[in-house]
Amino acid sequence: MVQTIHVDLGHTRYPIDIGPGLLGDRALLDLRLPGADLFVVSNLTVAPLYLPRLRAALTDRRLGECILADGERHKTLATAAAVLDALVEQRFNRDTTVIALGGGVVGDIGGFAAACYQRGVACVQMPTTLLAQVDSSVGGKTGVNHPGGKNLIGAFHQPAAVIADTESLATLPQRELRAGLAEVVKYGCIADAALFDWLERSMPRLLARDPEALTHAIRRSCELKASVVARDERESGLRAVLNFGHTFGHAIEAATGYQRYLHGEAVAIGMLIATDLSARLGLVDAPVLARLRALLGAAGLPLDAPRIGAAKARQLLQMDKKVLRGAVRLVLLAAIGRATVSADYGEEALERTLVEHFE
Amino acid sequence: MVQTIHVDLGHTRYPIDIGPGLLGDRALLDLRLPGADLFVVSNLTVAPLYLPRLRAALTDRRLGECILADGERHKTLATAAAVLDALVEQRFNRDTTVIALGGGVVGDIGGFAAACYQRGVACVQMPTTLLAQVDSSVGGKTGVNHPGGKNLIGAFHQPAAVIADTESLATLPQRELRAGLAEVVKYGCIADAALFDWLERSMPRLLARDPEALTHAIRRSCELKASVVARDERESGLRAVLNFGHTFGHAIEAATGYQRYLHGEAVAIGMLIATDLSARLGLVDAPVLARLRALLGAAGLPLDAPRIGAAKARQLLQMDKKVLRGAVRLVLLAAIGRATVSADYGEEALERTLVEHFE
Repeated sequence: MVQTIHVDLGHTRYPIDIGPGLLGDRALLDLRLPGADLFVVSNLTVAPLYLPRLRAALTDRRLGECILADGERHKTLATAAAVLDALVEQRFNRDTTVIALGGGVVGDIGGFAAACYQRGVACVQMPTTLLAQVDSSVGGKTGVNHPGGKNLIGAFHQPAAVIADTESLATLPQRELRAGLAEVVKYGCIADAALFDWLERSMPRLLARDPEALTHAIRRSCELKASVVARDERESGLRAVLNFGHTFGHAIEAATGYQRYLHGEAVAIGMLIATDLSARLGLVDAPVLARLRALLGAAGLPLDAPRIGAAKARQLLQMDKKVLRGAVRLVLLAAIGRATVSADYGEEALERTLVEHFE
Repeated sequence: MVQTIHVDLGHTRYPIDIGPGLLGDRALLDLRLPGADLFVVSNLTVAPLYLPRLRAALTDRRLGECILADGERHKTLATAAAVLDALVEQRFNRDTTVIALGGGVVGDIGGFAAACYQRGVACVQMPTTLLAQVDSSVGGKTGVNHPGGKNLIGAFHQPAAVIADTESLATLPQRELRAGLAEVVKYGCIADAALFDWLERSMPRLLARDPEALTHAIRRSCELKASVVARDERESGLRAVLNFGHTFGHAIEAATGYQRYLHGEAVAIGMLIATDLSARLGLVDAPVLARLRALLGAAGLPLDAPRIGAAKARQLLQMDKKVLRGAVRLVLLAAIGRATVSADYGEEALERTLVEHFE
């Protein structure tokens, strides 16, 4: 039942296990969690649902925990500090494995705390949302937000393993399922036209949580991400394509206080803006934009940006981490299945795009 | 004039430059600081003395700064957060090089902030104390203290370069010079009997700040540290020998609130305790302990532990990062010039040692 992909980074290699019931699979957990001391980071929504079955499968271990409030607005250095405090207070040592059990926020905070505790302890990601299973749990990006911008504080800290229990998607609110699908659409856009085609055909099955369809979407997304990360672990170049839609998306999230949109929702809007800019630059034809809009619409995702003003949007873009010596590097679409990173798009085209979407 | 050593870690390699006047050496700084955007982390003691000359040599760059209060008690996550806030507020991007200009505390905080900012920006260490020049600036250990223990939060983040201006030692208080010499003595103990012999002959010249003697001490210490770190960057084994005297030293620092002893002073006492334990175990003869005591005494370092009680000392040892599944691993001396890491020393010998020194 379990499908396993490997992320091979040369200096390290780790498995991604995908399948139903993995959080209670004692044999798999014993294989993936070799140490005696485990520390779970989770949140108030996920812990009551899934921590008991994990605990039941790990009765022979010491299992500490730190349960966080739920939500992106808690993805702060203060919350990461609270996790570190709990690790110290519960006297966990350097041989501890931190388990991040939850969605993207839990994975980012748990991974970052693991990266910083005693200069780095092992972390196993156990993503329970579609977004975390297809994207954020893989690749080693961890961190927290800063009032000045998203993910400005963090570390690259590759997990020792990723365990994606597809049964945990059963309790996921439909809105979060849709937000996760936005990242799957992203992989189709940037790297796999066949996945994009499949998504156009399979959206109703995905929204109905057909297990086979979801597993395919997760597996293919993880394969594509693993392939990109293997070639550029620290985002010196290629990896930036994974940020397709994210630069505009982050600006939207920041402008709305990380409250109005789920990350995937902001990314959906951001992908449309980036594709619109790509179309204005003649990189893709108008029908590509229409196809993407139709697919995201079929997923039930928001399609229109909040009217925060072009000036505000530009200011938030400038703070984006991908800013290189002043010029905002953007991920543009060259075709369905192919992305390109550029700072050479022309200020005028960007300005017109910002006015179109944000004014 | 400048002497350069290289630390070769396979995946990365960086130079350590040692010599007089390097903080004002425009040609060297241009070579070592390739980026346009620089951000100095320093403190209220060091910045007035050395930041102007650095600034004068870097007039063509953007040079931000964050000046911290001086002292180990400020080596906290809150201070690191203040550095990160300054980086965000001053809108520094991912291509920034953080310069840590100061002693060990500045290097640890500056290096940690660089490790966390935007998931890692470059850091150049510019140590201005002897302790930082011979030890803490090299090897990539960064971090801050936690109320529960020293350096419990941090990262391995190798510097892009280390620039040790020996002229900056001119303003160093004598007490800090002595504390730095404790780490030089450490290198003699763990890895180089010839250095130990040389220190026994050269202590008066070192205390009189003879430039040639100081340069030799710095260079030899950096060579020894580079050699150890090259073989074990992340302290999976061998690197632990660099902690000789530090496990007991950290307990002493924690028990006295990081206020009474300088780090090097606590390490001096810790080395004597570790050597006493080594002698009790028959690893070294009594004269070795006497030689070490005489050398540290000649350096004007404290030799006797504060009477915090054996129970308290043991409790603080247990929290040490080197605790592996309950047993405190200690660095013991097998001879002058040779250390060994062990958890197999026997509880009784440790107990007698703790009673001897702490009751």
